[in-house]
Amino acid sequence: MQITNENISHGGRQLVATHDSDACNCEMKFSVFLPPQAETKPCPVLYYLSGLTCSHANVTEKGEFRAAAAEHGIIIVCPDTSPRGENVADEDVYFFGTGAGFYVDSTQEPYATNYNMYSYVTQELPALIAKEFNADMSSQSITGHSMGGHGAMICALKNPDMYKSVSAFAPICAPSGTDWGSNAFTKYLGSDKKTWRAYDTVALIEDGNKVPEILVDQGASDEFLETGIRISLLETACEDKGIDLTLRMHEGYDHSYYFISSFMADHIAWHAKRLG
Amino acid sequence: MQITNENISHGGRQLVATHDSDACNCEMKFSVFLPPQAETKPCPVLYYLSGLTCSHANVTEKGEFRAAAAEHGIIIVCPDTSPRGENVADEDVYFFGTGAGFYVDSTQEPYATNYNMYSYVTQELPALIAKEFNADMSSQSITGHSMGGHGAMICALKNPDMYKSVSAFAPICAPSGTDWGSNAFTKYLGSDKKTWRAYDTVALIEDGNKVPEILVDQGASDEFLETGIRISLLETACEDKGIDLTLRMHEGYDHSYYFISSFMADHIAWHAKRLG
Repeated sequence: MQITNENISHGGRQLVATHDSDACNCEMKFSVFLPPQAETKPCPVLYYLSGLTCSHANVTEKGEFRAAAAEHGIIIVCPDTSPRGENVADEDVYFFGTGAGFYVDSTQEPYATNYNMYSYVTQELPALIAKEFNADMSSQSITGHSMGGHGAMICALKNPDMYKSVSAFAPICAPSGTDWGSNAFTKYLGSDKKTWRAYDTVALIEDGNKVPEILVDQGASDEFLETGIRISLLETACEDKGIDLTLRMHEGYDHSYYFISSFMADHIAWHAKRLG
Repeated sequence: MQITNENISHGGRQLVATHDSDACNCEMKFSVFLPPQAETKPCPVLYYLSGLTCSHANVTEKGEFRAAAAEHGIIIVCPDTSPRGENVADEDVYFFGTGAGFYVDSTQEPYATNYNMYSYVTQELPALIAKEFNADMSSQSITGHSMGGHGAMICALKNPDMYKSVSAFAPICAPSGTDWGSNAFTKYLGSDKKTWRAYDTVALIEDGNKVPEILVDQGASDEFLETGIRISLLETACEDKGIDLTLRMHEGYDHSYYFISSFMADHIAWHAKRLG
């Protein structure tokens, strides 16, 4: 692992790092904020998964998470949204390929060679964090935005013992039934829609995967609310299966980091209680 | 004035606006954050002047000012750092011309046609804010970073009755004696160095301009500390002339928005006390 950037901020250390990824078969980049408490003791870890078109940089610059992370003593890890590079298969659209890994392990070439973000986020990256930083790996939680909210929820639902808590900002709740998701899942996973259910939050809940609770913040003026987010499907699935969903709708808020940053401190405080 | 962007954030409205500027003889862009309190009553105004290479966008995205501005009910106005456009004279360097107006009124062509950021910031922009927003213009304060910290201090020193308070992040304290400043002042103001003193904080203080107090935060690992900032000259001038300078040096912090954002809430709270 190479540290490519380091800035002191809010009393902690904001790093950007690169490493050779086995899961993604290319160099991967992520950011990690080490709160001041990590200088002297192992700290809990909160992963933040970003949305379509983003890299680690968007939330690192615009997420406004460091004040709360320093207050609560939580390490914040922000991976990229896909593999990248000259040799990585891609399409010239914003909703597939580079910047749009959808947090799946692809089974279809040419994508399966690199697009294994599910294994990257749930296995390879945590192992690297455990090795390189003063992290308490028995206390991990996960959150994310949009495609990354989808990612956070599927990671938690598929690994309920790994994460202490899960939250999301404007998450894609049932990607299989969206234009974005069906395009991506067809190319990453193939045309057999049964295989898609392993990476679709609403389908996972319907199929019996469970976490005790989910916190979701959602802008009421989000331009993707009806076509991409489809929050009502999450509400129904959680109600049917006894998952305690706290859904907070916010009048006037959109899908941007102006929305995310407004509620970031709340999410960190909420996770902090559950991380102990 | 045209509103080109509007995002709800931290309970308020984050706007970007453009307008035809008389002072700068071109279209100018700025951002303004209206806290929720501005919906029902006139609110105090804090101007934030940005540094070399920046536009309104850097601090608007990375400054982390909205939570504190909403808490204290302060309007935050972030102008651009220079005139811009096809017809605006420029040089292809980061430290002069576009992105580097140095908050002076130029007297030398071709720059005098557009580079009048001092009049823009102290007169035209406040008049526009008063006309367009629910602002209490009897309560204005000013802050800024680097070149914008220089700008904030000269604006306050030259207009002590206009601003209730002034603070700065890593300000250029004595630009006349720096490579950046002497290059810019020669081109904007001419070779007669006596004219430069009207736009140099340390010179203005030496010449008897006065404010009661200045708050400055400074990173101890700022790469420009010795060559560009020269904070010790400000300390000496303030001590000699009885200005109460609160200078806070921060071990490890650099010149970036990771530094600025760490202390932004402190500055807003400090100004809030003085804005009443």
